[in-house]
Amino acid sequence: MADKEKLTQALQAKKANMDDWYPEVILKSELADYSKVSGCIVLRPYGYAIWEKIVAVVDEKLKKMGVKNCYFPLLIPESLLAKEQEHVKGFTPEVAWVTETGNSKLDEKLAIRPTSETIMYDSYSKWIQSWRDLPLKLNQWNNVVRWEFKHPKPFLRSREFLWNEGHTVFASEKEAIKDSQEVLDMYHNFVEEYMALAGAKVKKSENEKFAGAVYSMSVECMMPDGKMIQGPDSHFDGQKFAKAYDIKFLNKDGKMEHAWQNTFAISWRMIGVLVASHGDDRGLVLPPKLAPIPVVIVPIYKDDTKKEVMKKAEEISKEMKKFGVHLDDREEYTPGWKFNEWELKGVPLRIEIGPKDIEKKSVVLVRRDTGEKSFVKMSELKDKVPEVLDAIQKNLFEKSKKFLEERTKTAKTYAEMKKLVDGNRVLVDFCNEPACEEKVKGELSAKTTGIPLDDKFNAAKGTGKCIICGKPATCKAYFSKSY
Amino acid sequence: MADKEKLTQALQAKKANMDDWYPEVILKSELADYSKVSGCIVLRPYGYAIWEKIVAVVDEKLKKMGVKNCYFPLLIPESLLAKEQEHVKGFTPEVAWVTETGNSKLDEKLAIRPTSETIMYDSYSKWIQSWRDLPLKLNQWNNVVRWEFKHPKPFLRSREFLWNEGHTVFASEKEAIKDSQEVLDMYHNFVEEYMALAGAKVKKSENEKFAGAVYSMSVECMMPDGKMIQGPDSHFDGQKFAKAYDIKFLNKDGKMEHAWQNTFAISWRMIGVLVASHGDDRGLVLPPKLAPIPVVIVPIYKDDTKKEVMKKAEEISKEMKKFGVHLDDREEYTPGWKFNEWELKGVPLRIEIGPKDIEKKSVVLVRRDTGEKSFVKMSELKDKVPEVLDAIQKNLFEKSKKFLEERTKTAKTYAEMKKLVDGNRVLVDFCNEPACEEKVKGELSAKTTGIPLDDKFNAAKGTGKCIICGKPATCKAYFSKSY
Repeated sequence: MADKEKLTQALQAKKANMDDWYPEVILKSELADYSKVSGCIVLRPYGYAIWEKIVAVVDEKLKKMGVKNCYFPLLIPESLLAKEQEHVKGFTPEVAWVTETGNSKLDEKLAIRPTSETIMYDSYSKWIQSWRDLPLKLNQWNNVVRWEFKHPKPFLRSREFLWNEGHTVFASEKEAIKDSQEVLDMYHNFVEEYMALAGAKVKKSENEKFAGAVYSMSVECMMPDGKMIQGPDSHFDGQKFAKAYDIKFLNKDGKMEHAWQNTFAISWRMIGVLVASHGDDRGLVLPPKLAPIPVVIVPIYKDDTKKEVMKKAEEISKEMKKFGVHLDDREEYTPGWKFNEWELKGVPLRIEIGPKDIEKKSVVLVRRDTGEKSFVKMSELKDKVPEVLDAIQKNLFEKSKKFLEERTKTAKTYAEMKKLVDGNRVLVDFCNEPACEEKVKGELSAKTTGIPLDDKFNAAKGTGKCIICGKPATCKAYFSKSY
Repeated sequence: MADKEKLTQALQAKKANMDDWYPEVILKSELADYSKVSGCIVLRPYGYAIWEKIVAVVDEKLKKMGVKNCYFPLLIPESLLAKEQEHVKGFTPEVAWVTETGNSKLDEKLAIRPTSETIMYDSYSKWIQSWRDLPLKLNQWNNVVRWEFKHPKPFLRSREFLWNEGHTVFASEKEAIKDSQEVLDMYHNFVEEYMALAGAKVKKSENEKFAGAVYSMSVECMMPDGKMIQGPDSHFDGQKFAKAYDIKFLNKDGKMEHAWQNTFAISWRMIGVLVASHGDDRGLVLPPKLAPIPVVIVPIYKDDTKKEVMKKAEEISKEMKKFGVHLDDREEYTPGWKFNEWELKGVPLRIEIGPKDIEKKSVVLVRRDTGEKSFVKMSELKDKVPEVLDAIQKNLFEKSKKFLEERTKTAKTYAEMKKLVDGNRVLVDFCNEPACEEKVKGELSAKTTGIPLDDKFNAAKGTGKCIICGKPATCKAYFSKSY
């Protein structure tokens, strides 16, 4: 914290300048750091602890849905990667290639997985023979590399990232579609309930769907600058990969059939969305359900009151262990220094305890999200703490929801959309033709960020003409600037 | 199971031919599979579930020791890898190099991490400034690639593997040494208590220590053919890396000092040791504490008794949920088929329940390790199941311990060692000179598999002359064939 003033300046500029604030808060809160490899970051323990919580929650949800974890090789032979044409076109420009091992050239280049469809489906074609082998629902928590050449941004655009990739196979189209919807609902619930972020459930446009999918769905979030960012996604791949990788099974009627497949993923990118969305001028603001330290106790004492205060602080700390309370008992820092540090690190709730509090049998609670202070009787702390943590979680979500609602607009004409598209997402009638979307990209630097889906996964229908080309609208879609 | 006869033949050959039995049991039990990338395997859900249990236990133990998880980039620039000379010499012959991304050549080659000292310590040198920043105890659970050219064997020698790598930094030599010993004890306890494998705590010889370490310690296990295999290890690196990577701190006296470091690891290789050590002619035998399914219920019924049997089986399954009971309710397979399958998969305990059992209010328990059958009153099942699981865990460990003891010999002369070294580990007086060890390697295809350590980490002292060169023995060491 040597350059604390500089930090304060950068942080105070959140609204004014996200581009300065965002990396600064990530570095100073010790979530992550840059590395010697351009575009790749180090996830430090504080950031990794958030990722561990994300993994724990999502992993449990996936297991409840019958998905099993496994691990496939990092490296994929070039010939295997090339089997599904749309897929290979989508990914090869960003592949990191291994061409040498030790001092020898390899006969065939090996791709570091940008995603694992190709190597997994090669095994699937061996393992799946009969309807008895289906459904096959596998998932990996792993690292992938996509050597993007755009300007890197920690979490939001890193050349290597951690994620889950689920790859499921079904005996029928109906089962596959149902499952892909359940997966999207699971992710949507995670984003809203745990990350406290408003998430829009959408279907991707033809231009934006996953390379190899029949259609793609995703949860989209809004960043503080009003640009949208894609969160977790769920793709229905139909029989495309099954045909390319020869995944066939003998059905109950004794006939050979190609299988139906889905893929889905959530990545550490969401940590970046979390940081940007909830953070403020003093640093991170973490939702209690994902905070590595939900509650910190800062004892306040002088030499003569130290023993008494520390005794009480330890007592409270033990009693409140199940809420993830951390007692900051470091002697080399002042309480004021600690307040700043834990605020920077976004700890949702601070408990202050000093000699006067002990006299009054109370403590001070300070909320990170609102800064609100309250005095609470020690005897009531056990009930009050979970209550306040719950209130913080809800408040963060409500703020996020309100923000997205306020920034969601409708446009009837191209001119109207043009006026609104900077800082908002704009719902319009759309033909869903890639050419139309490319035109908007070129002219407005904006693209679709999804076709809205209702609770039953019906895509919003168009009600007139595409506001770009004037042909019949096949759907409604959001256009916005995006990450 | 189409080729069940062939499988049975291969499995029955365990004692006769480990080389056939070992891969066959791994493939047929669906622990792992080969992949399109030579030397790299797919960890299938059943194998991954064992790895998840290993990770869960070790991770909890590490966290209790104050170690925190983090994630560093997969790729390491060539120049960074080259900073510590012994280290780079040890690893570069096996490095997989990324030289191209997309269609462009890279300016500098990037190594896929064979281990992460070099990239982690580059960050450490930035993060560590003062005694306040120490100790720093970080760990990664990740994948590494070592492109070995020896014949690959699933788990035991794979070109990519999963592991943990711990990298800790201390302000004093004393602290570092103490911590490295605690880590070795933790691993040793894990190997014996959870894997049910006898593990020998040893110090590695000068010839066998880790590239870059001052000294290395490890837990060594014996495979069924009497060859030794290295398990988890714990290295004291002194200030070697700190000097190469400039990791310095201001101590409490205001002076700059190089820090003291350790590294430690356990890899999925241990799954291979587990398979080979406990397995038998019928397949895997898993210790209850690491078995993905500790107990399976197989219901036995005909059409007229199905309803009654299934009702009872479901009841028992629910009651016993906390022991990890799985009810095999598949209708497309016979009980006999299921018995074979779960035996092949090494499930420690089988519960059989049929109409006659229900009449007698009892069930049949069948132990996988001994094949022993017993009849147990349903009312006593809740107490009996954990009791039997415990007995199985103990029995597997005792067998492993007895085997290691029987195969541990002492030799007074080189000729005696030569006679004993095939299928045993042989304790001899040794000078600990690399030249002497290389001689044994050349002549007997054997090497040291450690200098015995007592409970207080004292290395066994030599009591006479090195049986190889005749110079004064500085220690006692085991020689054996090894993996």
